[in-house]
Amino acid sequence: MSRLTAAEIDTALEALEGWVPCTAGKTIERQFKFKNFNQAFGFMTSVALEAEKRDHHPEWFNVYNKLHITLTTHSSGGVTEKDIGLARFINDLNSGKTS
Amino acid sequence: MSRLTAAEIDTALEALEGWVPCTAGKTIERQFKFKNFNQAFGFMTSVALEAEKRDHHPEWFNVYNKLHITLTTHSSGGVTEKDIGLARFINDLNSGKTS
Repeated sequence: MSRLTAAEIDTALEALEGWVPCTAGKTIERQFKFKNFNQAFGFMTSVALEAEKRDHHPEWFNVYNKLHITLTTHSSGGVTEKDIGLARFINDLNSGKTS
Repeated sequence: MSRLTAAEIDTALEALEGWVPCTAGKTIERQFKFKNFNQAFGFMTSVALEAEKRDHHPEWFNVYNKLHITLTTHSSGGVTEKDIGLARFINDLNSGKTS
């Protein structure tokens, strides 16, 4: 799967609230803040099940109610459509459109 | 709950394989490597349920099969018996003594 250019990432992120290109365009990242740990880990669990199904996994850091997610496609050395697709799922989950 | 001294942390960690004092003695940290994401996230889920029960939560970073856990007691500004207790649970879980 081919790596998206900076312009392609920008275009994709226009429709993905909260995500920003990081690490010189090699990742897209978003921060979430939940009510408490229960809500944060519940959200992570839904993402984990979907990630496993897609065989495409996030890098993430959680402390209590905060969650920072980094998406990248290691095999392509940057951001691909796999990351955009997972980011879309995560945003839909966050806005209650899935789950 | 009072913060442990560097010497107290060292003594406690003697019985806790893999944990090291970090951040100038304000945290204890350990890295785990699992077979795959399923195993890593399954382990995180067991820790999350226990953390919620104890009302004492880890800071953690996961990427695929790797998990880095940081324990600290924010309200005490360092490492307390709460962290040692959770580290012990995590090690027991890892060695199959719990769960």
